[in-house]
Amino acid sequence: MTLPVFGHTNPDTDAITSAIVYASLLSRLGVTAKAYRLGDLNNETSFVLKTAGVEVPDLLEALPEGTEVALVDHNESGQSISGLSGLKVTRVVDHHKLGDLSSKDPLYLRFEPVGCTGTILGKLYREHNLPIEGWEARLMLSAILSDTLHFRSPTTTDTDREMGVYLAQIAGVTDIKAYALEMFAAKSDLGDTPADKLLKLDYKVFPFGGKQYGLGVMETTNPGYALGRKAEILEAMKQEKAAKNLEGVFFSVVDILEETNQTFVLDDAHAEVIKGVFGADTQDNVADLGNRISRKKQIVPAFEKYFG
Amino acid sequence: MTLPVFGHTNPDTDAITSAIVYASLLSRLGVTAKAYRLGDLNNETSFVLKTAGVEVPDLLEALPEGTEVALVDHNESGQSISGLSGLKVTRVVDHHKLGDLSSKDPLYLRFEPVGCTGTILGKLYREHNLPIEGWEARLMLSAILSDTLHFRSPTTTDTDREMGVYLAQIAGVTDIKAYALEMFAAKSDLGDTPADKLLKLDYKVFPFGGKQYGLGVMETTNPGYALGRKAEILEAMKQEKAAKNLEGVFFSVVDILEETNQTFVLDDAHAEVIKGVFGADTQDNVADLGNRISRKKQIVPAFEKYFG
Repeated sequence: MTLPVFGHTNPDTDAITSAIVYASLLSRLGVTAKAYRLGDLNNETSFVLKTAGVEVPDLLEALPEGTEVALVDHNESGQSISGLSGLKVTRVVDHHKLGDLSSKDPLYLRFEPVGCTGTILGKLYREHNLPIEGWEARLMLSAILSDTLHFRSPTTTDTDREMGVYLAQIAGVTDIKAYALEMFAAKSDLGDTPADKLLKLDYKVFPFGGKQYGLGVMETTNPGYALGRKAEILEAMKQEKAAKNLEGVFFSVVDILEETNQTFVLDDAHAEVIKGVFGADTQDNVADLGNRISRKKQIVPAFEKYFG
Repeated sequence: MTLPVFGHTNPDTDAITSAIVYASLLSRLGVTAKAYRLGDLNNETSFVLKTAGVEVPDLLEALPEGTEVALVDHNESGQSISGLSGLKVTRVVDHHKLGDLSSKDPLYLRFEPVGCTGTILGKLYREHNLPIEGWEARLMLSAILSDTLHFRSPTTTDTDREMGVYLAQIAGVTDIKAYALEMFAAKSDLGDTPADKLLKLDYKVFPFGGKQYGLGVMETTNPGYALGRKAEILEAMKQEKAAKNLEGVFFSVVDILEETNQTFVLDDAHAEVIKGVFGADTQDNVADLGNRISRKKQIVPAFEKYFG
């Protein structure tokens, strides 16, 4: 039996590369595993896979009940393949909080409060005394640079920094900053991507105060692009809210060079929430959330605190 | 802040020694930590601590809300300190299935499907390239021998065997079998322990089919002792069932040398459950459950399968 390995829906670079790398690691440990993706690649991830010379994983849509699976970079059912509770999760490598996961049998769990799943995978290679291939190192390094915004996000730990430098040597990346900027430029090159896709670039639904909120983030070196398409994106947010019966939808445009956050706000009701959660005013459907560039560390906790 | 580290209530050797060893490991990694126990030591554990020259950890009864804690050898709130959901679990090392644990923040989780938490702790020392002290090795070895019944329980993995042999060398235990028999003899030396304490030697409450069942296990080299006190123990089971409003209470006398299981059965209603779950008949309040010596691997899964 081949073990399917996958990251969260609306995959980012960490979700995709961690699936590929963990499947590779497991295979070397004698566990036949295959990486999948639960959605389309963003431009940054496409750039990373191309640069590393690695194929895009197959799309996974459904699995028969009871199938054994390995999760990377997520653990909550709401961010995973549909019907996760009917599957048998035997392994999870993740750096998020623990959500609604449970198991019927003992399993492998490897969670660490670091900035990136790639950092934990790098540790696993070292613990197993396995040499890291150049392409594996590049994938893990790329995930770390992506998740930590080149070591600048508040989620970044010393472990991420050390692992990033270590992996860069193996990958032959001599100028980490230049490579990160290449990745970010690829991510920001969105062309005529439809507005509903822009909303979903990095989008997760969270329960706050018993109700569901969708939080989209666009990390970019070119925030002007999103601001220029504000009307379209607001319309996509409105449609998403209605289609999924959500209590609210927000979209944060994060300038990863300047480290700023301009969040799109649908209407007065949404503006009231933003005022309550962050004390921020909304003008022309945009609220300035200052340097809150991490959804995990700065945005979600503020919502949770506000809604108790 | 000192991080409290503790195993489950009704502690066994793994719960106690893993708390001591993990606190020691964390302290060496720069995290100030202190081991506690959530209940009285059994005779085996007292023997182990005495042999290793290690002090009995302090009893922990309650902690202020929001206190950061580390759990070993358990993760379910029903087996932990009361009010666990109001504490902040930052670390868990465990070899059980994942229950109702969740977190508000990223955390350290290290779960492996091995026979003993001590085995995982041994790996952690190796991964951190930390030398293991003789007393630490003896505590981890003792936990492994206790949990795996000297490598004979079906929960035993190759990893447990390898780690046990490795730790025995460091601990200076040249005859592992002789040491295991000493431990088991200490465990079986129950003297005039009151019947309600016998029931709780190794006792956990599980939800099956939406109702609560208490499952006690006495692992012993002298099953005749428990059979001789059957009437008292049945009375203690009856009182426990009423006091905790349980759907059922069972007590398994496991002969760890012969690898047999004689389970005490309260009444006809309980006998019907045992017939349904294991196909076993009850005579004189005792059902022969054959070689089912592992509650985790053989008893609980059978109940779960039966009650769906």
